[in-house]
Order: sequence, then C-alpha cells, then structure tokens
Amino acid sequence: MDAEFFATLMQQHRRGRRYPPSAEALAFANRLLFALFPEKQGECMNSVSELEAEFEALRAELRRILEPLKGELKQPPVTIARNFMGAVPGLFGVLLQDAQALLEGDPAARSEYEVIRTYPGFYAVALYRFAHELHRLNVPLLPRLITEHAHSRTGIDIHPGAVIGPQFCIDHGTGVVIGETTHIGTNVKIYQGVTLGALSVTKALASQKRHPTIEDNVVIYSGATILGGKTVIGQGSVIGGNVWITQSVPANSRVYYHGGDQVQPPLIEI
Amino acid sequence: MDAEFFATLMQQHRRGRRYPPSAEALAFANRLLFALFPEKQGECMNSVSELEAEFEALRAELRRILEPLKGELKQPPVTIARNFMGAVPGLFGVLLQDAQALLEGDPAARSEYEVIRTYPGFYAVALYRFAHELHRLNVPLLPRLITEHAHSRTGIDIHPGAVIGPQFCIDHGTGVVIGETTHIGTNVKIYQGVTLGALSVTKALASQKRHPTIEDNVVIYSGATILGGKTVIGQGSVIGGNVWITQSVPANSRVYYHGGDQVQPPLIEI
Amino acid sequence: MDAEFFATLMQQHRRGRRYPPSAEALAFANRLLFALFPEKQGECMNSVSELEAEFEALRAELRRILEPLKGELKQPPVTIARNFMGAVPGLFGVLLQDAQALLEGDPAARSEYEVIRTYPGFYAVALYRFAHELHRLNVPLLPRLITEHAHSRTGIDIHPGAVIGPQFCIDHGTGVVIGETTHIGTNVKIYQGVTLGALSVTKALASQKRHPTIEDNVVIYSGATILGGKTVIGQGSVIGGNVWITQSVPANSRVYYHGGDQVQPPLIEI
Amino acid sequence: MDAEFFATLMQQHRRGRRYPPSAEALAFANRLLFALFPEKQGECMNSVSELEAEFEALRAELRRILEPLKGELKQPPVTIARNFMGAVPGLFGVLLQDAQALLEGDPAARSEYEVIRTYPGFYAVALYRFAHELHRLNVPLLPRLITEHAHSRTGIDIHPGAVIGPQFCIDHGTGVVIGETTHIGTNVKIYQGVTLGALSVTKALASQKRHPTIEDNVVIYSGATILGGKTVIGQGSVIGGNVWITQSVPANSRVYYHGGDQVQPPLIEI
Amino acid sequence: MDAEFFATLMQQHRRGRRYPPSAEALAFANRLLFALFPEKQGECMNSVSELEAEFEALRAELRRILEPLKGELKQPPVTIARNFMGAVPGLFGVLLQDAQALLEGDPAARSEYEVIRTYPGFYAVALYRFAHELHRLNVPLLPRLITEHAHSRTGIDIHPGAVIGPQFCIDHGTGVVIGETTHIGTNVKIYQGVTLGALSVTKALASQKRHPTIEDNVVIYSGATILGGKTVIGQGSVIGGNVWITQSVPANSRVYYHGGDQVQPPLIEI
Amino acid sequence: MDAEFFATLMQQHRRGRRYPPSAEALAFANRLLFALFPEKQGECMNSVSELEAEFEALRAELRRILEPLKGELKQPPVTIARNFMGAVPGLFGVLLQDAQALLEGDPAARSEYEVIRTYPGFYAVALYRFAHELHRLNVPLLPRLITEHAHSRTGIDIHPGAVIGPQFCIDHGTGVVIGETTHIGTNVKIYQGVTLGALSVTKALASQKRHPTIEDNVVIYSGATILGGKTVIGQGSVIGGNVWITQSVPANSRVYYHGGDQVQPPLIEI
Repeated sequence: MDAEFFATLMQQHRRGRRYPPSAEALAFANRLLFALFPEKQGECMNSVSELEAEFEALRAELRRILEPLKGELKQPPVTIARNFMGAVPGLFGVLLQDAQALLEGDPAARSEYEVIRTYPGFYAVALYRFAHELHRLNVPLLPRLITEHAHSRTGIDIHPGAVIGPQFCIDHGTGVVIGETTHIGTNVKIYQGVTLGALSVTKALASQKRHPTIEDNVVIYSGATILGGKTVIGQGSVIGGNVWITQSVPANSRVYYHGGDQVQPPLIEI
Repeated sequence: MDAEFFATLMQQHRRGRRYPPSAEALAFANRLLFALFPEKQGECMNSVSELEAEFEALRAELRRILEPLKGELKQPPVTIARNFMGAVPGLFGVLLQDAQALLEGDPAARSEYEVIRTYPGFYAVALYRFAHELHRLNVPLLPRLITEHAHSRTGIDIHPGAVIGPQFCIDHGTGVVIGETTHIGTNVKIYQGVTLGALSVTKALASQKRHPTIEDNVVIYSGATILGGKTVIGQGSVIGGNVWITQSVPANSRVYYHGGDQVQPPLIEI
Repeated sequence: MDAEFFATLMQQHRRGRRYPPSAEALAFANRLLFALFPEKQGECMNSVSELEAEFEALRAELRRILEPLKGELKQPPVTIARNFMGAVPGLFGVLLQDAQALLEGDPAARSEYEVIRTYPGFYAVALYRFAHELHRLNVPLLPRLITEHAHSRTGIDIHPGAVIGPQFCIDHGTGVVIGETTHIGTNVKIYQGVTLGALSVTKALASQKRHPTIEDNVVIYSGATILGGKTVIGQGSVIGGNVWITQSVPANSRVYYHGGDQVQPPLIEI
Repeated sequence: MDAEFFATLMQQHRRGRRYPPSAEALAFANRLLFALFPEKQGECMNSVSELEAEFEALRAELRRILEPLKGELKQPPVTIARNFMGAVPGLFGVLLQDAQALLEGDPAARSEYEVIRTYPGFYAVALYRFAHELHRLNVPLLPRLITEHAHSRTGIDIHPGAVIGPQFCIDHGTGVVIGETTHIGTNVKIYQGVTLGALSVTKALASQKRHPTIEDNVVIYSGATILGGKTVIGQGSVIGGNVWITQSVPANSRVYYHGGDQVQPPLIEI
Repeated sequence: MDAEFFATLMQQHRRGRRYPPSAEALAFANRLLFALFPEKQGECMNSVSELEAEFEALRAELRRILEPLKGELKQPPVTIARNFMGAVPGLFGVLLQDAQALLEGDPAARSEYEVIRTYPGFYAVALYRFAHELHRLNVPLLPRLITEHAHSRTGIDIHPGAVIGPQFCIDHGTGVVIGETTHIGTNVKIYQGVTLGALSVTKALASQKRHPTIEDNVVIYSGATILGGKTVIGQGSVIGGNVWITQSVPANSRVYYHGGDQVQPPLIEI
Repeated sequence: MDAEFFATLMQQHRRGRRYPPSAEALAFANRLLFALFPEKQGECMNSVSELEAEFEALRAELRRILEPLKGELKQPPVTIARNFMGAVPGLFGVLLQDAQALLEGDPAARSEYEVIRTYPGFYAVALYRFAHELHRLNVPLLPRLITEHAHSRTGIDIHPGAVIGPQFCIDHGTGVVIGETTHIGTNVKIYQGVTLGALSVTKALASQKRHPTIEDNVVIYSGATILGGKTVIGQGSVIGGNVWITQSVPANSRVYYHGGDQVQPPLIEI
C-alpha cells in the first residue's frame, strides 16, 4: 500500500473523536426501557424511591452522554436531559396504549406480558418514541443511532422525525419503513413490509413534507406502499396488502386490488 | 416527574419476576443446536458418551428453566423436559432433510457444511422446530422467545404454532411471515418476503384456523402473500413472486400475474 | 434416546473442526472497517505509522485465519492475504464514493459522518466489498460468513459473488436480495425489498449467469423484483416500486404499473 | 524463527486437546456455590422444586465435564457425578459451620451475610471443599484448577488433598499455604501468611505424609510456619505470629518467641 | 439428596435479595477512579462540563445503588450520595499526594503516570479511600465489597474503617493487612507482608481500638507485624523487616533484630 | 464541587491518551503464551504453517501496540517487534526447563501438563520472561503492565528488570518479591513470601544494583528475606524459611535460625 493511501486515510483519522460511543446511547435507551417495563428483563425494583433514584440516574447519564455534542445543541445538555426525562411519563402512557393495542390486535397474542417481552413491534416503537423525543429536542446523531439499533434487531425502520400517535401497532414488522416526515394518527395498525415513503428522493426536498399522512383508525396490510407528502389516508380506511398508493384516499376507504373480494383477478392458473 | 407516575410504574414492578430470563432459553436452544450440528461453532465431541452426557445435561437444564413456569404447565417440568428430549432425534432427522433440501434447492450453495453454518433459513427453521416442540408440550412464553430471537437474527418470523413438514427450505428469507395456524407439507420451498397470513385479524378468531395450508412440493416465490384459514395451495403448485392469493388453488397450479411467461403485462415503459 | 441416534450424531462430530471460527472472520472484517472509517467506533489513530502497523497486523491476521483452509485454496495464504490487502486502497476509494452517494441520495441524511456511522446500507455494502474481494481470490466459506453477518444485522442479503460498481446506494435496505451472478454498474440506487434474483432455481444452472444486469445510473424503488440472467436494465432507467420484471428494458426506461403517473389503476376504493 | 523451533512447538500442539476447558470447571464450582449461598450473587430461587432442578442440572453438568477425562477415571463419570452431588448436603452443613466460625472469630464481621458475601477466607474454603470431594473421587486436574482459581482470587493456596474439619476459619488469608497431606481438625483458625508445609521437598517423598497435623481448637497467628509430616500441633494450642515449628508441640501449648508476653526480646531500639 | 436438605436450603433462598449486586458497587468505584485518573484506562474527557456531567452521573448512580439499603442507612440515600461526592475533591488531593509519595519512594518508579497506571499499592489505597468515606457515612456492606475487590486484585487488605493520612505509600504490597481500628499518620510507607493487627481476637472487643497507631513519617519494612490497640509507633521510626512488635516504641526509633547493622546474629551458616 | 477542583482535574485529562490500552498488551502476552503452551487453554494448531502464521500475526500485533510509544523508543517499532519475536524460541526453551524444574521439584505435581496449566509460578515466570525481553529492548510501560498483571493473578511480583536463569522454580508463590536489579542463576528454587529486595530505598540509588545476586542451585524457603545489591548467595546454598540476610554467604551454605536442625530455639512453650 502506498504512501498516498495512508495520507488520505490519515485525514479521516485526524478528524478525531467527536461523538459519544454508540454503546452509551443504546445502553441509555435500553436501561430506560427496562425501568419502564421490567418484563423486558425480569428485574424489578422494590420501592418508589428506588424508581426515583433510577430516573434521576438516567437523567444524569443522559446529560453526560450529551456533553460531547454540546457544540451542536440548541440548549445546554442539562436542560435537554431534564426536558427529555420530563417527557417520559407521557411516553410511558403512550407505550402502555401501544402494548394494549398489540394485544387486542393480534389473535396470537396471549398476554400484555408476552407482547412487551417478545414483540419486535413493541421494541421498535418504544425506541422510536425515545428517539423522537430526542429529535424534538434537536439532539443530533443519537436519535438515529437508537432507531437504527431497533432497525437492526427488528427489521423495522422508523425515522426519529416521524410523528406517531398512541395505540400504534406494528405486527411482525420486518421490512416496515416509515419516513422522516410521516404523520400517523391514533390507533393505526400496520403489518410487515409496509412502506410509508417519499415519491421523489432529491436532496432539494429535504425541508419539505415528503412522506404521507395516515389518519386515525387506519389499517395497512403487509407490503403496501404509500408514497408522497401530500398523500393522506383518510381516517378509518383499510389499505390492502401490496397495494401501491401515491394519491390521497378519503375517509373509510377500502383499497384493494380489483374489488373488495380480496382476490387479485389478473392471477391466472395454468 | 410526579408521584402519580411513580405510583403507576411501581405497579408494573410489583408484579415481580415470574419468568426465566430470555438468555437462559436462548442459551438452551443454541446449545442444543450446536450439539446436533457441530459445524455451527466448530466444537466437536469425541465419543458417544460425551454426547450422551451433553444430552442429559440439556435435559436437566431444560427442566430447570421450566421450573419457574410450573404454575402454568400442564405436566411437571421433569416430564416435559423428558418428552422434549425424547423428540430430539426425530427433529434431528427432519433438520438433516431440511439442510439437504437447501443444498439441492440453491444453485449458489457449495456444501451441506456451508448451508448449516451460514444459511439463515436453516437457523430459523431449526429454532422454530425446537420452539414448536415446546409449544406442542404447552410451554408458555419460551417458544415465542426462541422464535423471536431467530426472527431478530434472520428476519424470518415463524410462529411456534405452525405445523411444518420435512425438507422445508427458506432461501434468503428476510420478511418471511408464517402464521400460527399455518400447515405446510413436505418439500416446500419459500423465498424472501413471503407471507402466509390471516385474512381478518380479530381477536374473536383466535381459536380458529386463520392461516393457509400449503400441500407437499409447493414452491412460493418472493413477496407472495397467501391468506386465510381455508386457503389451500394444492400439492405441486408454483406460486409466482408478489402474487396475492386468498382462495384455494388446485394441485399443480402455476399462479403468476397474467400468464405463464412470468411477465406482468400492466408494466409500461415510457 | 437410543444408541442409533448417538451413533449417527457421532458421525457429524467425527468430521472434526476444519474451518476457522466465525468470530475470527467477523472480527477481521469489522477491524478493517474501523481502520478505514474511524467514525464507526470513534477510535482514531494518531500517525501514519500507526496506520501502517495496523494494516500490517490486519494482513498477518488474515493470513492466520486462512491457514486452516489451506487445502482448499488456490494460492498460499500468505499470497492471498497480500493480494487482499493490496486491494484495500481501491476498496476504500469505492466506499468513499458509496458514502457520498448515500449522502446525496437521501434527503434525510445530515452528513457523511452520520451515513458512515449509522446507515445499514453502508455497512452491508462495505462488508460485501470485503467479502467479494475474498471471493475473487477463491477463498471458501469466509466470504459467505461475512455477508451473512451483514445480512443478519441489516436485512440486506448480497451474495459475495455479485459484481457491483461504485456509488452504490442502498437505502433502508431490509429485504434486499442481490444474487450471485448479478452485475451492477456505477451510481445505482436501490430501496428496501428489492430482489435481483434468478428466474429458475435449479442446481443444473449453478455455473451460468442467473441474475440480472443493472447498468449505470439506474434507480430501483422498493419491492421491485427483477429476475433472470439475461435481463438487462438499461442505463438511466427508473424501475417503480413493486414492479416485476423478467425481460430486459432499454436505456432510460421508466417502468411503473400502468403509466408514469405512479398510480396503480387496478386499485378500487369501495 | 527457524524450522526447528516450529517443529518442536508442533509436537506440543500435536498432543491435542485432552481436557475440559478451565472455564467449565470454574463455572460449575461457582454455580454450585451460588446455589448453596444465594448471598454470593443475590439471585434466589422460589421453590424447593427449583432447587431440586438446579441440583439435577449441576449433577448432569458435572458428568458432562468429566466425560473427556474418562480414560483417567476409576469410576464412570455418571457415578462420580452422583457421588459428588450426594456429598453436597454434607459439605453445605460444614460450610455453614465455617461461616459461623468466621463470624464469631472476627470482631470486624457484622453478619453471616457479610461473611458469606465478602470474606475471601469463606470463598477459598468453599472451593477447597468442592475440590477435595472431587480429589477423593480420584478426579484428575479439576480439583487443582478449582483451588488454583481460589488461590488467584484470594491468595489462599489450599491443596485439594488436604483434610480439613468443620468450623475452619481463615481470616485475611493472603499468603496462606496448606500442603497436600495436611490434616486439620475441628474449629481451627489461621491467619494470613501461615504455611503448613513440608520439611524436605523431594519427589521421592510424594507418597508420604509430608505436611503437619493440626488438632482441634488450634489458633495459628499470621506468618507462622509449621513444617513436616510428623509435626503435630496438639489440640487447643495457640501458635504465635511468625514462629517456625518443625517438631510437635503438646496439647494446649502457647508457642511464641521468648515468652508469653508476646514481645520478641531480641528487638533493639536505637 | 433428601427433602430435609432442600428445606434447609430453601430457608437460605427465602431471605430474598436485599442488597445491590457487587458488580454495581465495583463499577461505581472504578468509574470514579477513572474519572479522577484518566491514566488508568486512557480515556480522557474534553471539557470541564463533561467532567461536571460525569460527576453528577456518579452521584446519581451512587444514590441509586444505595436505595435498596435504605432501611439500614442513617441518612437518606440522596444525602449520603451528595456528602460522598462532596468529599471527592479532598480524596483526589490526598490520592495525588499518595501517587507522589510512591514515585519518590521507589527507585524503580519511572513516572507518576506509571505509578498511577500500574502500581497495585495505588489502586488498593484509592479504593480504600473511597470505601472509607462510605464507611464514615455508615453505609453497610458496600465499603467491604470495595476493599475486598482491591484485596483480591492486589493482595492488600485494608479494612474500610482504618484511618490513614496522606502520602501513604504501599510498595509491592502482597500480604499487607491493615485492621479496622488502625490509625496511620502522614507520609507513612509500608512494604509487602506487613500486618497491622489485633493482639487478641475476641468478639467482645469489637467496639474497642484493637489495632495500632502509626505516627507520621514511619517506615515499616516487609513482613513486620505490629499488634495491639495501645501500640504506638512514634513518629519518624523505622521498623525493620519481619520484626514483631506488641508494645509502643518512641519517636525516631530504629527497630531491628539485634542491632542497627540490619543483620540477624542468630543465623548460623553450616 | 467547586470550579477549582474541575479545573485541576481537567489538567489531568488534558494530558491526553499517550499509551496503548492495558488490554492490548495483556492480550498479546497471553496469546503468545497460548501459542507456546496450548495446554493453557486447550486450543491446538494443526500444522507448522498455522504456527508460522500465528507467530507472524503476533509480531505484527506487537509492532502495532508499540507504535503509539514510538517517541520513547530507541529503535523503530518494527525492529523491536522483530527482535522480540526472534528471542521467542530461546524463551520457549527456557520455559520448558522451568516447567520441568517445577515438576521435579514439587512432590505434589502430577505431570508437566498440570504444571503448565495450573501452576501460578509457571504463569508468573512466563510473563516475566516476556516482559524482561521487552525491558531489554527498552520498551517503556508495557513490561510493567505485563508483570503487574501476573502479580495481580498470582501474588508473585517480579520486576521486569531482574535477570533470571533457566530452571527457575517458584512454588505457591504468593508474596514473592524480586527486585529490579536482582540476578538469579540457573536452577534456583524459591517459595512463597520470599523477598529479594533492597536494603535502602532512596531514589538516589535508582541507577545502582540494589538487589541481591543468587547463584546457581540455590533453594530459598518461604518467607526468607535477602536484601542488598552486594549480597551474594553462593551457589548450592540453602536458605531456611523466614531468615533475614543482608550480607553475602559463601557457596554451599545452609542458613537457618540457630542451627541445622531447623528448629528455632527461642520458641518457648508455656
């Protein structure tokens, strides 16, 4: 290998270490999840004061993780950490609704305990909710680290910028993609392989709403693709599996290939 | 954070630790897999008596993992562990057939060794077969922990309740979903993104057969979706990629979009 | 369990340990990645001579990992290791182009740093490029171990045998499958769930080109399936989401379902 | 490095792997200790049947560890494992007496809980008692692996062959050496740096009693050295710090340098 | 194993888990040490605000670790944690003096960096100083866990209750024992195998001063034993190796066996 | 905590990271030990070329570890690494002699295998021999890191600067201290608690020989202390337990307290 290669590479290394290790951000997110849902690892606390101490430790830990990013933050780390932890009770309430929705929505689910402990959809949505709160507080990098960790473990890729209401239910989930400017209402249910994406992917559009809006009480079956920032799926609609939608549909629509019998006519058996 | 939040959260923690740690269940499943297929990690045993001792240790370990679940079991842990291990030779034979089918079915496969060591489809099916046996023995939680672990590593989501014959071959596999009441015959081959799911997902149907039946010698190409508890794919059929099926097809069908030339006419090049 | 089972199983164990542990191959691949892209873990080196020493250590480590495979190699391990490391500067240049393409292609990407550190598409392509180089040098098993590790972490399944040009960009990526004899040109962009596969999967075809050719500057949207060794997607084409293609399309095609308005007419809202 | 070196070294490597990994033996010993004394790591079991299952698992695990040593054992591994576990209730009773003696003997000890959890003397004696039982059953290597692990962690070196009665109390303990043929009675207490050793160390004496006998209720203060297979410290004796003894002393002796005032006259202050 | 054994053992297990895991206490102590002395692991912080955040996180972590012990504490965990962290700057100053004394006192020491990074005496004294502060705040168990961890790693056994002045220097250190009620002044230096112990070890004396007082500027050579709560080693004294002292010596004494020439006359060469 | 404390502490942190992590140096030393003595962990290599590759990898790894120290080295890292590895065959031969001497010298030793695998004396001497070679090559810090690691695990503290001949045998070993300028001949045997130290410990003497010379075929029993740079223990001498020597003794001496009967007359039984 010649000197030029090493000189080029040295430039990469000279930029130095600017960001906290991934492991710290992920450890924080998982520790918060375990504090809220002891089912996840079977460790329980014994008193309210232990819980209080754990949450104070989490707040202090978050502030510490944020310090090396200080130059890029809009508020001091100590403020961001306080604001984030202040939002946790609200997130907890929403996650309980998510778990309940998963239990009610899946005939195969045996108990809320099983849902919280084993469902990848619950894990991915929980980490998204933490990441989204950090994103709202304008924290760089960490939100994406957290959601990509969930993506790696579950195959569910939710951008931290998406806005998602309570009772959100993802079943199976592998291959789900939810883009940065997606809006999702209350009590929405989506299955594996659903894409909520952008119609056109050019950098020039980075500041616009590029992903769809899904209103309340919508169900989207596996493999459906819904694209575009102006596309609105009206409340109460049901989107069939594998459909491809790039224009809005009104409330209470049933959208399938060729009719409501859920059979695709172009199929030919030979 | 106010007192009400902590009081609510304390209720979560008070439920206590009722179930064995996930790590124990997964360690058991992987240890059993390594004992059957030393290729997986390159550790070999040197005598039949070492093998016998390892299987006795596995049986004792399983019984121990089951003890904390005793209140929810229909048989004593010691009986379940004995029955499970008694089924292992049968599972081993089936897994050898699975590996052979993967080798024969994939032109890119170089050897059975490579299949066993590197194919995610083999790993996911092996863990499913262990989990299904536990499910048959009415063990709660553990089967799902095991299959969700495989799901996380491979993107292949097989419910422990599904019934799957030998020579089962999943290639690539990311995004495969096989529902709880699916029946799959002998020598079936499926590709990435295939869903064998339910037509309607309401809790009321939890006790019914909601997922399809796939008869012997069927091939299902990538992205196909087959739904419904009464849907039967007749033996010897080939289901093309991305097709959407909600009604039964007779034996030896070839199901593609618009004809057997495997080209979808609605495509327009502009 | 009877004696016959243990006798059969003993045969599996008698084959002995022939291959290096997976952990060694993966540690090598990740260590090389971290040496090239310190962003990945935040560890930087301080001088060119540290870099040189690290690359010499990597070369020596690779030779050591190759030794147990010697009987199946076409060149001595020491030669293969030298040739592999000699190719690394070239791979580094290509990976920089890949990162740049990801940054430019995704409106949601904030910086090259974020792309390198968090994008699964970058990770999967980097490990594929290492594995492909080993594959070119006729190393058995290791290339597949490396790409399957990336597959497990990202849901992106690229066979080490595929030939892929620079500026390759995979976004989201879960469910992507790129087959063994695929050829991909420069500046190609693909999304989640895209399959570049074989039309017919029979062992007899193992030595033929079974997967498609994608020319320069092509974009393939999510869920598209392109099959067949003679299928060529002409340069500059755009392939719409979920389309199914088994025949070549000329340069600069726009292929969607039923027209360029990106709406699928067969959808019926009821 | 020349070829001769590698040829010589290859002979070392050709001997192959004959023995179980150290980690397995130590994991067994620590797991048994934790099952008996949950204080050690704070994990408790909830029912007698969980305990029974844990002990059955320990027995099976021990048998498995013993299998690779089979050629050197005088009984089948299954018999040794059963006999070892059969001795555990007795060992447990003795260890409770040891813990009680430590608590009573050390003014600084606050509770039996603290003794079991933090005292190195308790840990070293517990592992010795397990190792001694294996030694009695003629198991090679494992007893020494276990006592050397305790030696490494505590600085207390007890040969597995030593015979030691209940209520044995080692305080502080660093530097204690207790030789292979030592006999120690009931309620003996020794301090850091005590050596119970051999007068002459020649291989020819390997089959003889080379180390001393310490009768009941003896106290031996720090740094004392007692040597010789015929040396008997009579019951109820107190051996002062740093004394050097190579001949027997009668019961109830008080042995110090130059008198019972515990001051060494040869000291001169200048 | 009979039922009685399991019933007895069940009682041990029923006491439940009352105390924090050892790993948490040790992680806290080591994290604090690394924050004060980055040499220990080579990780540096980049700004005062990172340091402040780390210390706030340490305080919160300590409070959390203390919560399960609350019933046995004399002050609320939050108060103890605040008081402990308030003492850290003072401890840091003292530890800097300890390191300087080690550097000056050992001809083999190359730099303060080397002393801090590699000297077991520095590690053991640092952990003792943390543990002593917790002991002063009446925290149960944790101080002993911390000093026994240092004991295990260094062979240096300092009871958390001992009171030790600055510029304290332990060289080599294996076998050093410093009892609970020892008082040590400023600039004291001790070598391996030194015992500062009690004359009589009966539980009745638990509340009395049982261990010696060492005044300022004393040196105690290897293997010396100094016993008794009323024994005072006057300032500026030098205690020779292996001497045994149970009575006070005046200031500036030189105590050796038989004269100041440091030769022990009773030795006979034959 | 006030600002002054953090400002002071920041100075510690500003010095930055100059040295390689301890873990790398220790991993290198242990990997070399395992390559030479596969008994240590039961992993064997299968061919001379695997051994050659392992040694080349070790050399490259050492060079890499040395790079960050370059400013303090007298030769380039690549030269030091080559010279170090060139010395390994010689060190191996000496270590085989050490192992043989331990086997012959300890009646309790069963086999050379057991000695290599379990004896702390063998481990400490092996790591000392590696560290001494690095010390001879003027490498800073690493030699001390390596010997202090051995000290922590075995209680045996050998300074890397000591010069020690072959057939060196340390039994039990806890508390052994061997100073920086000690010289030890061939076939010397020492027991636990032996100190080979300096008479006077002042920084001014750092460049002089401060520790004793032990000639060939000497035995030194437990707890003996031999001090001074001019002190020579003549060849063939036997030094009794706990003796204190600060002047030379001629060849073939037997040095005990008060006569050769190995009984210390000052003992009084009351």
